[in-house]
Amino acid sequence: MKIYFAGAIRGGRDDAALYLEIVTLLRAHGEVLTEHVAGAELIASGESNDDRWIHDRDLAWLREADCLVAEVTTPSLGVGFEIAKATEWNKRVLCLFRPRGGRALSALVAGSDRVTVREYHSAADLREIFDEFFATR
Amino acid sequence: MKIYFAGAIRGGRDDAALYLEIVTLLRAHGEVLTEHVAGAELIASGESNDDRWIHDRDLAWLREADCLVAEVTTPSLGVGFEIAKATEWNKRVLCLFRPRGGRALSALVAGSDRVTVREYHSAADLREIFDEFFATR
Repeated sequence: MKIYFAGAIRGGRDDAALYLEIVTLLRAHGEVLTEHVAGAELIASGESNDDRWIHDRDLAWLREADCLVAEVTTPSLGVGFEIAKATEWNKRVLCLFRPRGGRALSALVAGSDRVTVREYHSAADLREIFDEFFATR
Repeated sequence: MKIYFAGAIRGGRDDAALYLEIVTLLRAHGEVLTEHVAGAELIASGESNDDRWIHDRDLAWLREADCLVAEVTTPSLGVGFEIAKATEWNKRVLCLFRPRGGRALSALVAGSDRVTVREYHSAADLREIFDEFFATR
């Protein structure tokens, strides 16, 4: 099982520590292709690589992946972009959303029948969510 | 020329007044299918319609459109989603970005060879950007 994990980078790194917990939990279910997204050293200015190079690498990883797991609480152009590509390419998609401040999830994500949205409150809730998602193929 | 305009809704309405100026300028170049995105009455909780209904309506409009014009300064899952779909469906894409606070645009958007990114500072810069984009087909 190859897993593409998506989280905000240039959209904001508020949840970076949580992304690391998510990646650690996901490793029990397969190979995480995008572990760098959880890197504590990765700040909001993003990687130093050329944008075109990053784009091509990330989309190659997404094509290779069996599924996309996205943390969607921090609004992010890149994460929305990856979710849409995954739905076009018939990948399974799991979106993890922490409701807070009355903010609602994008209707394009929440309203897609190719996307499973699971609300949660902390990393402690995720083990069960992942067990359930990866048990059904 | 049918134009799909994309701007943040649930990601945040900080730029709502600017979206209205953009839509007004775009009307000189074609029919704007998504004028509601610029609506002053549209707040960050989004439309009251069902998410699935919004998803299906928006993607039907995007399929019908000749091009996508997206304001990408406010990070937004929905706008990233729309840009990715447009690149998959071979639509022309123009992204408008106001650099501020050192924030960089997502590499997935900036690094796509199907996307034209134009930086600007205020609505006064947009007329020339639109004239140029719509003059080339």
